[in-house]
Amino acid sequence: MELLKDRIAREGVNLGQGILKVDSFINHQVDPALMLAVGGALAARLAHLGANKIVTAEISGIAPALMTGLALGIPVVYARKTKPVTMHPNAMRATAPSHTKGTVTELMISPEFLGPRDHVLIVDDFLARGKTIRALVELIRQAGATLVGIGAVIEKRFEGGREELANLNVPIESLVVVTSMENGHIIMED
Amino acid sequence: MELLKDRIAREGVNLGQGILKVDSFINHQVDPALMLAVGGALAARLAHLGANKIVTAEISGIAPALMTGLALGIPVVYARKTKPVTMHPNAMRATAPSHTKGTVTELMISPEFLGPRDHVLIVDDFLARGKTIRALVELIRQAGATLVGIGAVIEKRFEGGREELANLNVPIESLVVVTSMENGHIIMED
Repeated sequence: MELLKDRIAREGVNLGQGILKVDSFINHQVDPALMLAVGGALAARLAHLGANKIVTAEISGIAPALMTGLALGIPVVYARKTKPVTMHPNAMRATAPSHTKGTVTELMISPEFLGPRDHVLIVDDFLARGKTIRALVELIRQAGATLVGIGAVIEKRFEGGREELANLNVPIESLVVVTSMENGHIIMED
Repeated sequence: MELLKDRIAREGVNLGQGILKVDSFINHQVDPALMLAVGGALAARLAHLGANKIVTAEISGIAPALMTGLALGIPVVYARKTKPVTMHPNAMRATAPSHTKGTVTELMISPEFLGPRDHVLIVDDFLARGKTIRALVELIRQAGATLVGIGAVIEKRFEGGREELANLNVPIESLVVVTSMENGHIIMED
């Protein structure tokens, strides 16, 4: 996706240790028109899988998932990290270790919004080590729903998430693949 | 906004103590087409204020703010509640007490994305007591930016947020006004 590659090339910052800062258009400030294009591009690659629901994780997954859901005409469920007072008492729960924070994050989805009839796409901002997506897969499994595919805005190929998720046997689509961040560079696949 | 009123009437749940659960279309599961309409409706009411940026708070504010930003063609900055590793060290900070959780939430915005040249709309999912919006106003003040208006998807009029924010002297628009939640009802303004 050239629009996104150009934006990463211009505004992405390599903070070292594999951390790619895209706070000016995805993770803190969001460019809605870019997100609309991102959602359209992910939808075009994933529409054939026939999903009826998208699952993502708060916080940064919400914008790309929402726009993908808009393009596909299906609802988006975002897994919560803290239990809101409105949440169903028997929420499904799974945990994911955070590489950058050194902590463990719990993700929760209410059984009201994910169940055995659902065919689910996971959409997230980054595919890095695949740990957050693993936790979302676990929630989908607990719900008895069927995972049909995974979409990421940016894949950090060198962190191995694609291999981590290979045994799920579902299509994994990412719009931009970063192959290396060594020596301060941000190298993207053509 | 009739579309939204109908949805609240059908799917909103009064949990008591003024808590309105709209988890099936705003706060946990999100309906992207409804959010697009919500963003368009807020944009129509707020466009004349000439904002160049929208500020919201993670998490539930992101979807309506993103769609309002899409309609207005301007970026959205969402205040963070936890400091990501990518965040500028000198982030602006403000706190808001949470009524429903009994805790204090810190909100942070990087000075990279909010400054003296910005004319800002605040967009959030709920206008209740106005405490979160107060904290966002404080961040805008710290940035030296100018607040030009406030938009909320749902206003709980009986919680007094509009009065709390009156001295800001900016237009406050909400798409649906809930006037009472007594006795298990959800009474909305015509």
